[in-house]
Amino acid sequence: MEQTNIESSSQPQPLTSEELRKINAYWRASNYLSVGQIYLLDNPLLTKPLTLEHIKPRLLGHWGTTPGLNFIYTHLNRIIKTNELNMIYVTGPGHGGPGLVAHTWLEGTYSEIYPSVPQNESGMKKLFKQFSFPGGIPSHCAPETPGSIHEGGELGYALSHAYGAVFDNPDLIACCVVGDGEAETGPLATAWHSNKFLNPVQDGAVLPILHLNGYKIANPTVLARLSHEELESLFVGYGHTPYWVEGSDPETMHQSMAATLDTVITDIKAIQTNARKTGNVTRPRWPMIILRTPKGWTGPAEVDGLKTEGYWRSHQVPLAELSTKPEHIQLLEQWMKSYKPEQLFDKNGALRLELAELAPEGPRRMSANPHTNGGLLLKELNIPDFRDYAVSVPHPGQVEAESTRIMGYLLRDVMKLNDRSRNFRVMGPDETNSNRLGALFEVTDRTWMAEILPDDDHLAPNGRVMEILSEHTCQGWLEGYLLTGRHGIFSCYEAFIHIVDSMFNQHAKWLKVSKEIPWRRPIASLNYLLTSHVWRQDHNGFSHQDPGFIDHVVNKKADIIRVFLPPDANTLLTVTDKCLRSRDFINVIVAGKQQQPQWLSIDAAIKHCSAGIGIWEWASNDQGKEPDVVMACAGDVPTLETLAAVELLRQQAPELRIRVINIVDLMTLQPREEHPHGLPDKDFDAMFTKDKPIIFAYHGYPWLIHRLTYRRTNHNNLHVRGYKEEGTTTTPFDMVVRNDLDRFHLVSDVVDRVAKLNQTGGYIKQFVRDKLIEHRHFITTYGKDMPEIINWKWSGTYH
Amino acid sequence: MEQTNIESSSQPQPLTSEELRKINAYWRASNYLSVGQIYLLDNPLLTKPLTLEHIKPRLLGHWGTTPGLNFIYTHLNRIIKTNELNMIYVTGPGHGGPGLVAHTWLEGTYSEIYPSVPQNESGMKKLFKQFSFPGGIPSHCAPETPGSIHEGGELGYALSHAYGAVFDNPDLIACCVVGDGEAETGPLATAWHSNKFLNPVQDGAVLPILHLNGYKIANPTVLARLSHEELESLFVGYGHTPYWVEGSDPETMHQSMAATLDTVITDIKAIQTNARKTGNVTRPRWPMIILRTPKGWTGPAEVDGLKTEGYWRSHQVPLAELSTKPEHIQLLEQWMKSYKPEQLFDKNGALRLELAELAPEGPRRMSANPHTNGGLLLKELNIPDFRDYAVSVPHPGQVEAESTRIMGYLLRDVMKLNDRSRNFRVMGPDETNSNRLGALFEVTDRTWMAEILPDDDHLAPNGRVMEILSEHTCQGWLEGYLLTGRHGIFSCYEAFIHIVDSMFNQHAKWLKVSKEIPWRRPIASLNYLLTSHVWRQDHNGFSHQDPGFIDHVVNKKADIIRVFLPPDANTLLTVTDKCLRSRDFINVIVAGKQQQPQWLSIDAAIKHCSAGIGIWEWASNDQGKEPDVVMACAGDVPTLETLAAVELLRQQAPELRIRVINIVDLMTLQPREEHPHGLPDKDFDAMFTKDKPIIFAYHGYPWLIHRLTYRRTNHNNLHVRGYKEEGTTTTPFDMVVRNDLDRFHLVSDVVDRVAKLNQTGGYIKQFVRDKLIEHRHFITTYGKDMPEIINWKWSGTYH
Repeated sequence: MEQTNIESSSQPQPLTSEELRKINAYWRASNYLSVGQIYLLDNPLLTKPLTLEHIKPRLLGHWGTTPGLNFIYTHLNRIIKTNELNMIYVTGPGHGGPGLVAHTWLEGTYSEIYPSVPQNESGMKKLFKQFSFPGGIPSHCAPETPGSIHEGGELGYALSHAYGAVFDNPDLIACCVVGDGEAETGPLATAWHSNKFLNPVQDGAVLPILHLNGYKIANPTVLARLSHEELESLFVGYGHTPYWVEGSDPETMHQSMAATLDTVITDIKAIQTNARKTGNVTRPRWPMIILRTPKGWTGPAEVDGLKTEGYWRSHQVPLAELSTKPEHIQLLEQWMKSYKPEQLFDKNGALRLELAELAPEGPRRMSANPHTNGGLLLKELNIPDFRDYAVSVPHPGQVEAESTRIMGYLLRDVMKLNDRSRNFRVMGPDETNSNRLGALFEVTDRTWMAEILPDDDHLAPNGRVMEILSEHTCQGWLEGYLLTGRHGIFSCYEAFIHIVDSMFNQHAKWLKVSKEIPWRRPIASLNYLLTSHVWRQDHNGFSHQDPGFIDHVVNKKADIIRVFLPPDANTLLTVTDKCLRSRDFINVIVAGKQQQPQWLSIDAAIKHCSAGIGIWEWASNDQGKEPDVVMACAGDVPTLETLAAVELLRQQAPELRIRVINIVDLMTLQPREEHPHGLPDKDFDAMFTKDKPIIFAYHGYPWLIHRLTYRRTNHNNLHVRGYKEEGTTTTPFDMVVRNDLDRFHLVSDVVDRVAKLNQTGGYIKQFVRDKLIEHRHFITTYGKDMPEIINWKWSGTYH
Repeated sequence: MEQTNIESSSQPQPLTSEELRKINAYWRASNYLSVGQIYLLDNPLLTKPLTLEHIKPRLLGHWGTTPGLNFIYTHLNRIIKTNELNMIYVTGPGHGGPGLVAHTWLEGTYSEIYPSVPQNESGMKKLFKQFSFPGGIPSHCAPETPGSIHEGGELGYALSHAYGAVFDNPDLIACCVVGDGEAETGPLATAWHSNKFLNPVQDGAVLPILHLNGYKIANPTVLARLSHEELESLFVGYGHTPYWVEGSDPETMHQSMAATLDTVITDIKAIQTNARKTGNVTRPRWPMIILRTPKGWTGPAEVDGLKTEGYWRSHQVPLAELSTKPEHIQLLEQWMKSYKPEQLFDKNGALRLELAELAPEGPRRMSANPHTNGGLLLKELNIPDFRDYAVSVPHPGQVEAESTRIMGYLLRDVMKLNDRSRNFRVMGPDETNSNRLGALFEVTDRTWMAEILPDDDHLAPNGRVMEILSEHTCQGWLEGYLLTGRHGIFSCYEAFIHIVDSMFNQHAKWLKVSKEIPWRRPIASLNYLLTSHVWRQDHNGFSHQDPGFIDHVVNKKADIIRVFLPPDANTLLTVTDKCLRSRDFINVIVAGKQQQPQWLSIDAAIKHCSAGIGIWEWASNDQGKEPDVVMACAGDVPTLETLAAVELLRQQAPELRIRVINIVDLMTLQPREEHPHGLPDKDFDAMFTKDKPIIFAYHGYPWLIHRLTYRRTNHNNLHVRGYKEEGTTTTPFDMVVRNDLDRFHLVSDVVDRVAKLNQTGGYIKQFVRDKLIEHRHFITTYGKDMPEIINWKWSGTYH
């Protein structure tokens, strides 16, 4: 596709020649600094002839996307100043790291935050050297980059992050550059529909710029090779009014970009003013920009006779092998000098005053906007006393409740109490009601800016429950919302949270690095409620059964992640309160939504959750003595089956001394050296004994428990039951039977491992075998579980 | 949005009244059978008044989407017959399981495959009872469903599966129903662009039908609430010509659907004929259908005074609580009788002949199309002798090579040798060249149907390397390709393969169940090459570093998954050959792309890979005696560091007896009872000793090795080094240093654990500490690794 300037030439020319000269100079300055970061160790102002010793021995960085990002940044500065905008910059093409860093240095923020990199020649030298250099800064946008809320690593999430940032920030505009590579990803492709969830009255605006750079690493991009008409249709279909800026001639492009930005800002303001004055919240057609510029714009046109500017060869370092090709050093010097650094920087290496004046000031600088360091703006969430929502549990196991429904009452009141602050949202892929959090709809609605019909149920433009059938979008919105200093929770079917495994990785990495950066302030934790879990997907079947997200999570740094398996409603309330108050973590809560016995009073729950693990004395009969067997459980269904097994054993082998341990906080199982919540070895040994058999009923894949405990004294006697990938559409109890996690298998496991039962064991094993045959016969005949399973209740005899 | 018939009323009326009557009857028959499956245990023909005892005690199933899917199926039968089409049906809304099963029974396939479910009243009773019933069949489309290649579980992959199925099947049309819920997912949103990769000459066609059912579980869908114009624009933007079929009146809708299908089939044939005659492969504008029908169409309009048909309340079972609400039993009977079963089935319960004739015959039935049981069509891949590509390795560690580049030569010739069969493709997100598989471009190109410019590099409509920056789409295409009986491989950056974690889950589950179904024939394995791995993302930094896909994979069934970590080019060749020849597995190969020492000759590599694990005697000095320490390694970088550590130890502590073990097949570490490749305990003990320290250098997260080996005798002496989430942009060697996996830390680990070194240990530890200080100083000064690291070569003295 040829570069044309047809569009732009017919547009107005808003810049005076003086403005044009300056804006172009500012852009050249940022390009110069970008190339310098990629290449130079020394001689930053090129005051001496460039030689190999001034050049980095390893060239790591990406030029291709950078001049385009710099072009946009420079122009955003102009409209921020002329319109007094509150704006942040979200750049999908994270490879453009050098450009973003260059701008933060030009506008002073970088030196304010990192005083060792001042705005002079020595600072410029440090700026260059540190980039993509061991002990320096990463090559992509990263937490180290002032003004960034978006890691430039994995692609796909720029747009959902930008929307997350502007929800409930009516004054904020997030300019979001979507690379045409990233635009091919699924998460990005659906994130365009976020505009159906943006309320012009109470939310800010996103200004998407689709940057048609033309090429990925070694390939053209799909969108860059569509016809103008097709691409225009696509974005009209996505609900936008596209404005085109295309070309390569800097002067024309500056006029075109300035004129277009003037137009789109006027559009955005008109939409907002109209909606806010009239209260009319019909979904507007938001503007967006399609910017087509050459990849590696202003870089070497050809290298070694091969096309480079405007081609994928510009993706990383257009000039390489400088130690063996001296002519490349010359080319590099020519390239850098083409920006005319002497016109841009004074003798000391500082940006000339007439250019520095082009940047906004103070917190209006995109690199210093407090929304990009959300912890600065974070307000404590107003959380009611969770004890007020407690289920009354006079005796363990006598009362039933749906745990997540109880949690829903707490979330409802959190929503209500923070209604004025507008800083709490609940995300989920169409499952808020299904996950029994429906109480939220007593105080708010589902966010909805598309058409609303009379029959609709709790849809409203100002709803605060956000449902879209895209786990990616839910996660991206929530991340953007949290990174800009707000609070939230994401509820999801357990199996399908794997859809965002990779997004979880990136957010965990962001948090890990942010914690090491003093100026990054703590933000609210990312909270997951995983429900409709593996043991209660009996009706949806095998495809909906996977408890492996926990395994994925525990691979990340111990000081970032927390995993909770509350066995009932009161423990779920306690854990929820803890998670909502925490900072800089990723909290995973796994809890069922079905009716189930309640075990702990609220006081007992608080005590239990505070330790994270504990002996349930009311269910044990070892009365302070060494038990014959330890029965441990983590998760609501395993807890139920364990207690049912304990009761069977009590009937069948009353002489057996059983200790019951329940684990809420999975991290307590790890050694203290591995995780701050880890139980000290001495306490672990006291609890689990040093040599007695442990039968551990676990919610997920059994080997995770081995992985967490392999260093513990009694690990050799640990026998774990859990999900072993045996599932289908069947009854709830049959699901646990298929995976050997049911009460009968647990009893059998105990018999196999306790010497004391040598005598009676044969009888007990025959008893459980008969029960399992009866179960199988019953479900295949009647399609439901035996009444003795459905109606089972903890007898409470040990109590 | 009101149901309108404006579009359809202006359309032709292709059906005679007789045809109309019959097609409507066939549709009613499938709806009747669908409701029957959801509700009934007995009384299938309603010959007796319906009572509670005829009804299932647990109602599990989804009605909402089913009548729409049945409507489409019935109409596809008609055009298959009138046009002699070779067609398969991919249904995104997997909840419509009962509809698909109903059709397979109506057309006889079900009874042919499952003779215990004949086409009569007793068969109908079994058909009803087994659905979503313990011991029966799942509630969603599943491998058990004849004619399905697409699990109806997680949403997002219908369209990429459909495209995968028709690549290289010029005669095949995949009709793909995209639910408007699924359309909100990211993977689906980008899969529309698959049409830029479909060649009308040599590929078949996909006919997408966007089914605007209107609602998800409890919410409207986004696309159903866009204006007609906006939605039209969106699909024009996606490269389609949309045809609309909207309404709820069956007669009008039948005429409209029939007319529209006639048109789109004519369009598809015209596109194909034109391209195939003229060789003109300009990207055509393929037709698609937007079908808007009420959710739960023909079901109860209202239940308990609440709107049900045309609303989300139809999603699952519109009538529930039948044991307590007798009026619901009446409603159910009325509903089922509204289909007039006596007109549809004869006294014996068989479909009336005049209706049965409406279905296609034999393999033209969508439920019996051999493409949906790909193993039937699978041709052996023609694979050259991989030994011909071997790197000559006269002595271990003296030669260097890029392992994946060598693999690329093999893949190139596989591509060439199977060019005529057109049954091998390579997928990847724009990384084929970057991953050093560029030799493929000597014999083929990248598939590209969008605009091609003169400068473009190996783009062609008939290319067989498929690159799109969407891991989801790559995976979905490959799955569709494999499930229809072809072969392929997916190469990906290791960190970003987590993007498809959830797709991997679903495919693994599909394979697990398929293996248990005798009529499902084995298909080619899904092969991953993960390269640009964690240890060689030093330039891209922390966001690109994650080796956890292996952990994710090993949670799945042992008889499905294989993980290989070949340490050099010849082992990679051997493993690649093995994977390409295997069936019904998911093979994960992790191998670097950088220059690295080569260890094994091809004969040694074959022997080593055949065992999967082995003592490297040439690197060991225990000469058949019990060693003082075992140094184990898995992965190319850990192998390099282990050998470097061995050499340091040889210099510093020549008295130490070291045994070096290398692991290619990770599954050998597990007990034999856990995985068929597991080493028997006796052999494991002989190899790893029963009591000597083991220092294990592993490619990924260290705890995985513990998880795999915790039952082994010597597990207590096992010390594992691996990636512990410490990374940034730095040098390659610094990456291993940061994670304590480098040669110096390994030496130190040995010293800490071998009593024999009590004397000399202090000196050795000081030596390695000094080396690490020197390293740190060197890289922060010069930005590259010390020459002694870069130039290190195995001295071969032990050899």
